[in-house]
Amino acid sequence: MKIFKKAILPKGFKASGVACGIKRSGKPDLALFYSAIPAKAACLFTSSTIKAAPILLNKRYLKGSRSFEAIIVNSGNANCFTGSQGLRDAEAMSLSLARVLKTKKENILVNSTGIIGRKLPLPKIKKAIPGLVAGLARGGIAKAARAIMTTDTFSKEITVRFNIGGQAITLCGLAKGAGMIAPDMATLLVFLFTDARIRQGALNRALKTVVDNSFNCITVDGCMSTNDSVMLLSNATAGNPAISSGGNFDTFASALQAVCLELAKMVVKDAEGATKFIQIKVCGAKSFQEAKKAALAIANSSLFKAAVYGENPNFGRIVAALGAAGIDIKEKNLKMKVSHLAKKEIDVNVFLKRGESSATVYTSDLTPEYVKINAEYN
Amino acid sequence: MKIFKKAILPKGFKASGVACGIKRSGKPDLALFYSAIPAKAACLFTSSTIKAAPILLNKRYLKGSRSFEAIIVNSGNANCFTGSQGLRDAEAMSLSLARVLKTKKENILVNSTGIIGRKLPLPKIKKAIPGLVAGLARGGIAKAARAIMTTDTFSKEITVRFNIGGQAITLCGLAKGAGMIAPDMATLLVFLFTDARIRQGALNRALKTVVDNSFNCITVDGCMSTNDSVMLLSNATAGNPAISSGGNFDTFASALQAVCLELAKMVVKDAEGATKFIQIKVCGAKSFQEAKKAALAIANSSLFKAAVYGENPNFGRIVAALGAAGIDIKEKNLKMKVSHLAKKEIDVNVFLKRGESSATVYTSDLTPEYVKINAEYN
Repeated sequence: MKIFKKAILPKGFKASGVACGIKRSGKPDLALFYSAIPAKAACLFTSSTIKAAPILLNKRYLKGSRSFEAIIVNSGNANCFTGSQGLRDAEAMSLSLARVLKTKKENILVNSTGIIGRKLPLPKIKKAIPGLVAGLARGGIAKAARAIMTTDTFSKEITVRFNIGGQAITLCGLAKGAGMIAPDMATLLVFLFTDARIRQGALNRALKTVVDNSFNCITVDGCMSTNDSVMLLSNATAGNPAISSGGNFDTFASALQAVCLELAKMVVKDAEGATKFIQIKVCGAKSFQEAKKAALAIANSSLFKAAVYGENPNFGRIVAALGAAGIDIKEKNLKMKVSHLAKKEIDVNVFLKRGESSATVYTSDLTPEYVKINAEYN
Repeated sequence: MKIFKKAILPKGFKASGVACGIKRSGKPDLALFYSAIPAKAACLFTSSTIKAAPILLNKRYLKGSRSFEAIIVNSGNANCFTGSQGLRDAEAMSLSLARVLKTKKENILVNSTGIIGRKLPLPKIKKAIPGLVAGLARGGIAKAARAIMTTDTFSKEITVRFNIGGQAITLCGLAKGAGMIAPDMATLLVFLFTDARIRQGALNRALKTVVDNSFNCITVDGCMSTNDSVMLLSNATAGNPAISSGGNFDTFASALQAVCLELAKMVVKDAEGATKFIQIKVCGAKSFQEAKKAALAIANSSLFKAAVYGENPNFGRIVAALGAAGIDIKEKNLKMKVSHLAKKEIDVNVFLKRGESSATVYTSDLTPEYVKINAEYN
């Protein structure tokens, strides 16, 4: 498997990005991803009970459609808590694009990211769509990557190439998020594109497993977004025998895991105000779920994160976070190992001596700068 | 009911406080509360699965004893995650005091608060005990109140006087905590003293109900302590007919609620680095538990709290916090009202339109100063 630290679109995909005027800064804020050959889609959405309008629309489209041609994304406005007007706006966004692309609106997925509770400036988006489509190009991915950013300080991109049945497969991914989890920045959006031929069930299964072991293993502030979405399109142009299970499925899932874990780590590294990247591994748990629960309890402790920022070896905070997680830990069995806090990347290893399972999660430190960024963002 | 903004010990109680050298600052760090007449005790402890040694000891003593004569408290060291040595140290603390007081160690409750994971400096405590006992006086409560503080900037004290069966009853309380919830400062300790005559079952029931509606309704950082304890002693010197249920019970419980709610609010007002006091009321929930869950979800959102610090009316963060709480809220039914953010005291009112229940919780804003305090504390 070859790894490239930028997004290189697989065969048949194009992308584009423009500034349509949603962001007051005038920065790019509208992105388009397009496949000339209709693609299968696997999608996962936030588990928040309050979901942004485009998520409700996408869920409806995913029930009716088997193939998708485009993903349109605006930044600067989350189109969330915008009522039935928000849903009509999201639909209008897909319809405007469908007309220019000469397809059905149900073949288009819609994403919004930015501030919650403000009406989407639909006229600006509609006006920009023809230019957005005209700009579609294989190399347009760099512009698209910038147009999905909010408080991100760098674009998160990666591509892997590998072989299945003698055919070269490309899988590339983009993520947007600065701090996993900053709800009204409608945080985490991930777009994945591959030319692999793969059955729908296998595509869904691979995405679910991989997301549980990558994006669901990172946290910045424990806040869940109303807009989180991960979308994977495959347009089957690579000409490989269709992937369903066995060794080929494992190869594809491994590549997808490598892409998603790398993107997830990039999100944590770009966390708002962060100065440290923290990897927390919990071993000796009764199950993966228990290990992850324990690791997330530490990763979401403001006190632990502030101690890491202060390079303050106050490891009682790890003990307290574990105790509060509700796992029945025997004090005498609990062992901890923390790498030198002066480093930029900190490893925390916790041993519970309850079983054989382990999990690793990634987080950042909590800094005065995080508070300042979020005190001022609107 | 008369309210006094300082602790005035009821008949039969005395207190004392000294500096025994646990705190490097030389500030008072050892407190004693004493009742010449053995008192009934009701106690509630942290639900953390990792409990400090004195909590384990108190639980054992509470099983065996029906009456208590003293509570000893040290600050500067939590005696938590200190293994079997910690338990022996807590027991030795009670034994040393018992010898001087000429009573059994099982009649003494022990508390520690401070940093987690460091051995208790027992010789310093033992050496100070005779002087601590010699200093016992009704007016010693002020010294005791200072000796239980860690990062607190003021002592939290209140007293109420009311009548039951024609007899004047005094109920006074002290709380220690700067930020509900700062685990390795082993946060919240509350000591309540009354001369009311009350049956053991009624005492337990009143404390449980009241704590659920006061100390369990505040949060600063969502972190739970390993040492949290609330202790209520009643020595029955007021001469009232014994309280068991009915109107007298309600009178007593109301007074206890007034004391505990006021102490709980003081803790939030002294929250580490805080600049705002935030009251969050959720109405129209299906149950008190649901309303409290929703209110705590808002109160524990770092993003909401940073927005309040920035006086930034970014109310999408309330929506996102509610969505993440897992309550099935209909977007069109959700209404919010937030008072002017420039004020020091902020009211947040949320209407869910799901039922008739409500709950109020209290919290503070999240500030760069909170992060700095907790980056440096050790």
